[in-house]
Amino acid sequence: MEKIPIGKHVQGSRNSIVKKKTVVIQGLGFVGAAMALVVASNRDDLYDVIGVDLPSNAGVIDKLNAGEFPVRSSDPKVSECFKMARKRNNFRATSDQGAYALADVVVVDINLDVHKGVRDEHLDTSYSVPLDPFREAIRSIASVCKQDVLVLVESTVPPGTCKKLVQPVFEEEFQKRNLSPEFMIGHSYERVMPGPGYIDSIRNFYRVYSGIDEKSADAVESFLKTIISTEEYPLTRLGSTTASEMAKVLENSFRAMNISFIQEWTEFAEAADVNLFEVIDAIRMRPTHKNIMKPGLGVGGYCLTKDPLLASWSSQHFFGAKHLPQSERAVEINDQMPGHTLEHIFQHFREGIANKKILILGISYLPNVGDTRSTPVEPVFAALQDRKARLVLHDPFVPFWVEHQLETCSDKEALAGDYDAVILGTAHMTYFDDGLLHKILNANKPMALFDPHGAIPDTIRAEFPQHVFKITGRGDV
Amino acid sequence: MEKIPIGKHVQGSRNSIVKKKTVVIQGLGFVGAAMALVVASNRDDLYDVIGVDLPSNAGVIDKLNAGEFPVRSSDPKVSECFKMARKRNNFRATSDQGAYALADVVVVDINLDVHKGVRDEHLDTSYSVPLDPFREAIRSIASVCKQDVLVLVESTVPPGTCKKLVQPVFEEEFQKRNLSPEFMIGHSYERVMPGPGYIDSIRNFYRVYSGIDEKSADAVESFLKTIISTEEYPLTRLGSTTASEMAKVLENSFRAMNISFIQEWTEFAEAADVNLFEVIDAIRMRPTHKNIMKPGLGVGGYCLTKDPLLASWSSQHFFGAKHLPQSERAVEINDQMPGHTLEHIFQHFREGIANKKILILGISYLPNVGDTRSTPVEPVFAALQDRKARLVLHDPFVPFWVEHQLETCSDKEALAGDYDAVILGTAHMTYFDDGLLHKILNANKPMALFDPHGAIPDTIRAEFPQHVFKITGRGDV
Repeated sequence: MEKIPIGKHVQGSRNSIVKKKTVVIQGLGFVGAAMALVVASNRDDLYDVIGVDLPSNAGVIDKLNAGEFPVRSSDPKVSECFKMARKRNNFRATSDQGAYALADVVVVDINLDVHKGVRDEHLDTSYSVPLDPFREAIRSIASVCKQDVLVLVESTVPPGTCKKLVQPVFEEEFQKRNLSPEFMIGHSYERVMPGPGYIDSIRNFYRVYSGIDEKSADAVESFLKTIISTEEYPLTRLGSTTASEMAKVLENSFRAMNISFIQEWTEFAEAADVNLFEVIDAIRMRPTHKNIMKPGLGVGGYCLTKDPLLASWSSQHFFGAKHLPQSERAVEINDQMPGHTLEHIFQHFREGIANKKILILGISYLPNVGDTRSTPVEPVFAALQDRKARLVLHDPFVPFWVEHQLETCSDKEALAGDYDAVILGTAHMTYFDDGLLHKILNANKPMALFDPHGAIPDTIRAEFPQHVFKITGRGDV
Repeated sequence: MEKIPIGKHVQGSRNSIVKKKTVVIQGLGFVGAAMALVVASNRDDLYDVIGVDLPSNAGVIDKLNAGEFPVRSSDPKVSECFKMARKRNNFRATSDQGAYALADVVVVDINLDVHKGVRDEHLDTSYSVPLDPFREAIRSIASVCKQDVLVLVESTVPPGTCKKLVQPVFEEEFQKRNLSPEFMIGHSYERVMPGPGYIDSIRNFYRVYSGIDEKSADAVESFLKTIISTEEYPLTRLGSTTASEMAKVLENSFRAMNISFIQEWTEFAEAADVNLFEVIDAIRMRPTHKNIMKPGLGVGGYCLTKDPLLASWSSQHFFGAKHLPQSERAVEINDQMPGHTLEHIFQHFREGIANKKILILGISYLPNVGDTRSTPVEPVFAALQDRKARLVLHDPFVPFWVEHQLETCSDKEALAGDYDAVILGTAHMTYFDDGLLHKILNANKPMALFDPHGAIPDTIRAEFPQHVFKITGRGDV
């Protein structure tokens, strides 16, 4: 375990001798790792930062301690933050949960997962939300922390979790420890996005926060002000932790539902010979309709694929109220969405897909980013593999697809195909700007191109009329 | 019947002698009447305008001919347009369908209704869309019109109507009349909103248009450019009439669905003791989430209450494709939404509502406007009337509630209550700005206030703590 420098006395930026506070980040995943960097590189050098993760994540811990960011990112600010932290020598990662004892602030950035397909018998849902791992993680803090610790939960949780789970666990542990309950608990959710704005999606973006009481909310506010540009992006305080927990899952459910909504219109447009993309461009002229979504392959990532279920589960489990059928249904529809592109593929290869050579361009769930969490390319890949297609994978942002333990091919290999079809899994700009798609079309016999994103420009279609283009949501193609 | 001046030779704005074209507006309802005025008052005095409606609408026809607008409107531009038309002497209304014979352009602004609760046995839907009245209206044009007429359909129709209904009727009638099919058919939808921007919602707003062929689309474009400020609000041409018909019902379905989505969160927030309004304000800080809707009483008006059904019906009837379950469900949820506020009311009056004196403030479906079409206040009114409540109605914008043949009361009468409850049916600004609500609270014994819009400010709640406030979507009240 790394030696952790704590309680150093340093020359503060306000020309006074201040004792640096210790901030411990629980969970060094996609959010926690970035949060740790942002806290360590705060403007006024106020904190020593310790990142804690499980021993099973030793790889991540080692990387961070070596100054290497564990998430592949195109954001140059990641290395800037690292440089700053190295210079200050104020950031270490560890698997030792004893670190929580040193914390003035603990930021909780662990995942709280939904198990899809695992029935909750009690609530009669087709998914379940096991709270135990989260509860035990909270207990690991409460059982050793300082009496007046501030616990800031950033994890996306079922609304009600801070009041109905975190606070009771703290009360229980503090009672065992014969401590008066001076702890403070708050909730504030991040809106972290992968890609080139990774660090700024924490540092320079709006934040919502709350506390289980006034004192907690005030403490969260003071802390956030030291790490976020709150003058430019004012904080919003909500009346309860349940409110800010709800805000997080509501904003993601709103987006998930807007995506799912367009799926039935995609199929309608195809039946009616309409180009849904031009229809949506026309609708987006209205300021009130700017965020209507376009057709796509499906929904990936960690948030939109589960947050609506966390909400519905909370309504039933924590509050004995009704489930949220539209929000649940949005997740179902989005999960099934890749099936629509698969239908196009199967329809094209009526004689069967076995032994067809198919190039999948893009694996990431978002364009221009290497992030394969719950990518909708996965079910397409799996279904084609099941049917014995000969698949070639290409993604400049994903050299190695961890979930499938597969290496993707180089540009040169992608070109050498003799393919029966190309599927645009992710509409990375590089496929068009750097002309890879154009080269592939030039190098191949006439074949089928499946574009669920409507990303292939009409100019390419016009140039290669002997190829078959199937663009989801474009009945007119 | 009014004498219709046609074919006048006038001094055109471009200093040449031009024969004015005749534009006939079919349907003088909410849209057609305003469209007629906008066309008649076009910048360059290019048209003679004839409005045609059914003999059963003689009242509207007489009013228009007398220079009185048949729709109550706070828009000062309505009378400006009238003055202009009077001066030009270029606008008449009539019930004589012979007028279509004079038209260079016919603008179709009649309603195509959905019959909710009337099963379509063939499609297995719980609603039906009778096309016959619309078809006969189109036939009344096709049977007498000029050979090269331009028919511009502005009505909201099931996508596919221009190609699958309007065009075939014209072909049939032109064959009967031994005319070569030189007619042009286009579609362009209005986005008319009642209220102070009534005229500008036609003249100064984005337009989408299309034609059944290039010639038709070009003709629509030329016509629209003469009546709409297209330099400031550029036109968008879509590839087919089906596409622009789809755009209209899609943008309204999007909105209907965004409203329905928030209903399940409203109930969740109430169960979880959360103020959903502050949660939504926090979410709206994100530019991508600006149009997430707030809780409300329900959805009214002519569009959002039926357009999603037109779409789903079209997909099945015209294209043999699937229905649109999310869009259909949005209408169902919105239709049931007033039931939630009624639940609050019944819950409060557990001992029964008979003989309770209840003031309903606001009947219109939109604030600051007198428009009672499909207002969600109606089911609340009906349910309370059924249960023998003593109801008092107030709406400064609706002196007479046509659908119920009821006069609403004056401010003075509204004050004189001794009410058991007040329901804020419509959040007209005047209730707060002019202090009527404040005066009512002062003049009454402690009572219950039901606010499904979250419009009553916290300051009023603080000032009258002895009253019971029940705000939909605010579990914290």
